[in-house]
Amino acid sequence: MPEYFSEERSVEAVNARMGRDINPRLAEIMASLVRYLHAFARDVSLSQEEWALAIGFLTRTGHLCHDERQEFILLSDTLGFSMLVDAINNRRPPGATENTVFGPFHVEGAPIRHMGENISLDGKGESCLFIGRVLDLNGNPIEGAWIDVWSDNADGFYDVQQPDIQPKWNNRGIFVTGADGAYSFVGIKPVSYPIPDDGPVGQMLASLGRHPYRPAHTHYLITAPGYQKLVTHTFVGDDPYLESDTVFGVKHSLVAPFERIDRPTIWRSDFDFVLTPIEDGR
Amino acid sequence: MPEYFSEERSVEAVNARMGRDINPRLAEIMASLVRYLHAFARDVSLSQEEWALAIGFLTRTGHLCHDERQEFILLSDTLGFSMLVDAINNRRPPGATENTVFGPFHVEGAPIRHMGENISLDGKGESCLFIGRVLDLNGNPIEGAWIDVWSDNADGFYDVQQPDIQPKWNNRGIFVTGADGAYSFVGIKPVSYPIPDDGPVGQMLASLGRHPYRPAHTHYLITAPGYQKLVTHTFVGDDPYLESDTVFGVKHSLVAPFERIDRPTIWRSDFDFVLTPIEDGR
Ligand SMILES: [Fe+2]
Ligand SMILES: [Fe+2]
Repeated sequence: MPEYFSEERSVEAVNARMGRDINPRLAEIMASLVRYLHAFARDVSLSQEEWALAIGFLTRTGHLCHDERQEFILLSDTLGFSMLVDAINNRRPPGATENTVFGPFHVEGAPIRHMGENISLDGKGESCLFIGRVLDLNGNPIEGAWIDVWSDNADGFYDVQQPDIQPKWNNRGIFVTGADGAYSFVGIKPVSYPIPDDGPVGQMLASLGRHPYRPAHTHYLITAPGYQKLVTHTFVGDDPYLESDTVFGVKHSLVAPFERIDRPTIWRSDFDFVLTPIEDGR
Repeated sequence: MPEYFSEERSVEAVNARMGRDINPRLAEIMASLVRYLHAFARDVSLSQEEWALAIGFLTRTGHLCHDERQEFILLSDTLGFSMLVDAINNRRPPGATENTVFGPFHVEGAPIRHMGENISLDGKGESCLFIGRVLDLNGNPIEGAWIDVWSDNADGFYDVQQPDIQPKWNNRGIFVTGADGAYSFVGIKPVSYPIPDDGPVGQMLASLGRHPYRPAHTHYLITAPGYQKLVTHTFVGDDPYLESDTVFGVKHSLVAPFERIDRPTIWRSDFDFVLTPIEDGR
């Protein structure tokens, strides 16, 4: 007599159905997904009404996705899933700069700037000198590192969110280190902003008693031959949302000093980035 | 020093963010969902490329959902999630007829027919007399039970899938039992059919080496005052897909006899439905 699906052996019944000549990694992932999804339904004794609500939520989330909006990424981010995947894939030795979420606002092809140049093109916000070095784990400078930087403007919007209002490449630029590994540029002290919260994810956050804000941060994508790609932010230490980042991106080591110097810029933020060689870790 | 998100305490970091005055059932479900989703990512060491593939899959699944197509339900069905939720919510005592998936093809308001009437309006397929009784757990007949029945036609399509080709209410009807609890009607011996497989779920099934077919079945929704709603099928025992139903709906107790009698109908299928009182179980 064949063994059909039952409450007790639901996982085995589903996973036994997979064919033999399929991608082994896909088989591993799907078997695990079925195991944990079924464990979840069992754990909470999910009702059929709750199941129907979940189907509706996923459907609305999908319907909101288009070229300029990725509601499923927001969902992954706000459930801490994106940061967990980032952490699993970017375990680093002590002393190396830590990764954090990439976010949806990076744009390929930003202009390459000279060291010291000002990337704040709209003249808004409090000016800040960002300065430091790109180093290896032994403290030696890394030459030829590409520092791709981007942040929101003083109103909390990235240039791509306001293409009609902000100058193109506002608060964006690429800086390439010389033999001393040093970098410096003028930008603004960034400000906190809410993730888009007018959709299902915003409704979820509200239902959970959570706000949609990210603490103020400057994004960095730093690459150098022979080193792991570093996707990170620096955070402003006095931000009210520092301990409640809605996407869980904050790490102690990424909170940067912002010192008030008033001239030639209002603020100065010193931060060294330490890259991990490719051989170390994955 | 605040404790930020980390790989080790990812679940605690996310769940600690929930507010205090929120719906306690929502809090319970979301806390469990986060726990099991994070455990899944950890278990398979999900890569960032795999994460991006999953975001794309969910997005395409959402985009395919519209009034006549619910790809997320197909996803839930083919992962055995729908059947598990059905099982958790419909535990029944021995002797009671078991539940199975509702499916997307039920239509409210089918015509009430007289016992013995023929619901196959298109004249296609092999005729079958469906006959039996609706009983309680002690074997006593239940009077006034509504038997809402629906099946595909001989080409494997429900009338709602072919509104221009099939007569309205083809292979559908409601029968109401008298004092003897007996029912009988003429329909067709149903045929196996594929679930819609031209979308992401069909691609997933193909990647997993699975076919999209459901074994031949007749759907029933049986209600009677004081008894639990029974959502079930009867299955044709010699169907080649009986042991590989793509939505895992088959149960031993739901495989019905189909006896060849040739006249007045080609087939005869005897099946008694046993309802569970509402007090027994949930
Ligand atoms: Fe950002
Ligand atoms: Fe069906």
